[in-house]
Amino acid sequence: MTSVRYDRQSIIDRTLGLLDDVGLPDLSMRRLATELDVQPSALYWHFESKQELLGAVADRILLTVPDPDDRTPLMRTATAVRDALLAYRDGAEVVLSTYALRLGARRAQDALLASLGGEPEDADAADAIFEFILGHAMLLQQRMHAHSIGAVAADAADPTAQAEAIFTAGIRAFEAVSGLRHPS
Amino acid sequence: MTSVRYDRQSIIDRTLGLLDDVGLPDLSMRRLATELDVQPSALYWHFESKQELLGAVADRILLTVPDPDDRTPLMRTATAVRDALLAYRDGAEVVLSTYALRLGARRAQDALLASLGGEPEDADAADAIFEFILGHAMLLQQRMHAHSIGAVAADAADPTAQAEAIFTAGIRAFEAVSGLRHPS
Repeated sequence: MTSVRYDRQSIIDRTLGLLDDVGLPDLSMRRLATELDVQPSALYWHFESKQELLGAVADRILLTVPDPDDRTPLMRTATAVRDALLAYRDGAEVVLSTYALRLGARRAQDALLASLGGEPEDADAADAIFEFILGHAMLLQQRMHAHSIGAVAADAADPTAQAEAIFTAGIRAFEAVSGLRHPS
Repeated sequence: MTSVRYDRQSIIDRTLGLLDDVGLPDLSMRRLATELDVQPSALYWHFESKQELLGAVADRILLTVPDPDDRTPLMRTATAVRDALLAYRDGAEVVLSTYALRLGARRAQDALLASLGGEPEDADAADAIFEFILGHAMLLQQRMHAHSIGAVAADAADPTAQAEAIFTAGIRAFEAVSGLRHPS
């Protein structure tokens, strides 16, 4: 054991790095402690539970989503959310699990709602868009992972085939509804 | 070991029962074989791999989705898909994993496309709706599971709170787009 000390931020950074290396199923507090060369108790000094740590990791993953602004087009905000989820291995699953426990900030939903116009009556639509992006990104990450480990036939279609078109079709639908409610 | 023989259908049935009992993370071919009181090789005689078996289970889960019919309103088809996923523990995750590997039938997507009008140019929108329902149902199942094992505070909101309103908002958006393209 070394005397290196870690603060919350550096633990979050190293957790993201380990997530990219081993994936969510193999990411344990014990493994993370070994990686940091500290006792597991050092982690629990900063985070009460693995779930709380993953909530902080989810917030970090979504940090690249632009601040809520009703001048940002929905497609741009939605694309930023998708790209944030795809930037780290199992990113969509980490964020979905966190959202399931109602942990973590609502940065993505707030930005999506602002792009819809920011009216409270569009809050359900903003959540629906977020759930669409989560489903889309989880599917894409599982498909890319299956390809990377050779779990599908070598002549299988490109894992990202059609993904852009499907994503665009989904977001366009929500754009249309917003346009109907708030004609410009 | 008994001399009971199982055919494909009865193995699928028993897999669904075991899925409901133990959940997807603990569903292994070994455990299933023990449950059926056969050697694992008996399972591999019917299914080449666990993935192929899960593909058949996914098809079974979606069997309650109505046959593709352009007279079935989108909301009814989408609700049937959602209810099918929610009918079994981890149902959404089983179907998402199968779809990620491009295994299983496209029963849900075909029914959704028919309800959009059945035009080939709406295929991406039908896939987007399916991805929205998968994301929505996965989130809901994770949230319900967390509540059932006490992983959230006792005073936490009802896990299904807002779920119906968010689902409706999502499907209404796709109805609107379909109406715009095919005015009646």
